[in-house]
Amino acid sequence: MSDCIFCKIGAGDMESDIIWESDSAVGFRDINPQAPTHILIIPREHVPMIADANEEHQELLGDLILTAKKIAEQEGIAENGYRLVFNNGDHGRQDVYHIHLHLLGGRQLTWPPG
Amino acid sequence: MSDCIFCKIGAGDMESDIIWESDSAVGFRDINPQAPTHILIIPREHVPMIADANEEHQELLGDLILTAKKIAEQEGIAENGYRLVFNNGDHGRQDVYHIHLHLLGGRQLTWPPG
Repeated sequence: MSDCIFCKIGAGDMESDIIWESDSAVGFRDINPQAPTHILIIPREHVPMIADANEEHQELLGDLILTAKKIAEQEGIAENGYRLVFNNGDHGRQDVYHIHLHLLGGRQLTWPPG
Repeated sequence: MSDCIFCKIGAGDMESDIIWESDSAVGFRDINPQAPTHILIIPREHVPMIADANEEHQELLGDLILTAKKIAEQEGIAENGYRLVFNNGDHGRQDVYHIHLHLLGGRQLTWPPG
């Protein structure tokens, strides 16, 4: 069995506040939110990093963005706007090595983005 | 003719520091960099916002991410890591209404992402 906590969340083997499920992706609330709305969107497939992705993951990556867009509508933050963030590796401050997209909204995001 | 400055950059009608070109996307240096490496990746197709994207743009969105991954390798920041950011609308602090992906690296990014 995988030791990856995001694989476990996707499989329903670890508790999380899931707000979106599709055949390909799962959306759940970040346990350490940085904005009034802070959702993580993960693919069900285990891919550790953006740096590991290649052409065969193009559809998966596009799906994560489109899923974030739909979740933003569901969460009521589409009109005011939001930010989408992928962290990759140490300098990006990636914490879990299963690709995940951060959706942040409900407040004014600032610049630079960290 | 389009008034969109990113359409003009993609068409070669406005000067910019272009570092990547493909049939579908263009990468160029941000004129106001927030990190030692700060690249913008745009689709050649004009789509104003993530909020405007739908299933027909899934391939385009995945391509932007994969292009960023390849540019990170070219720029020598793949090993240490990087962050990818889409700003959407006011709260996301989107400045140009032609979808663009920020690639930031060459320093430790912090949290929250703005």
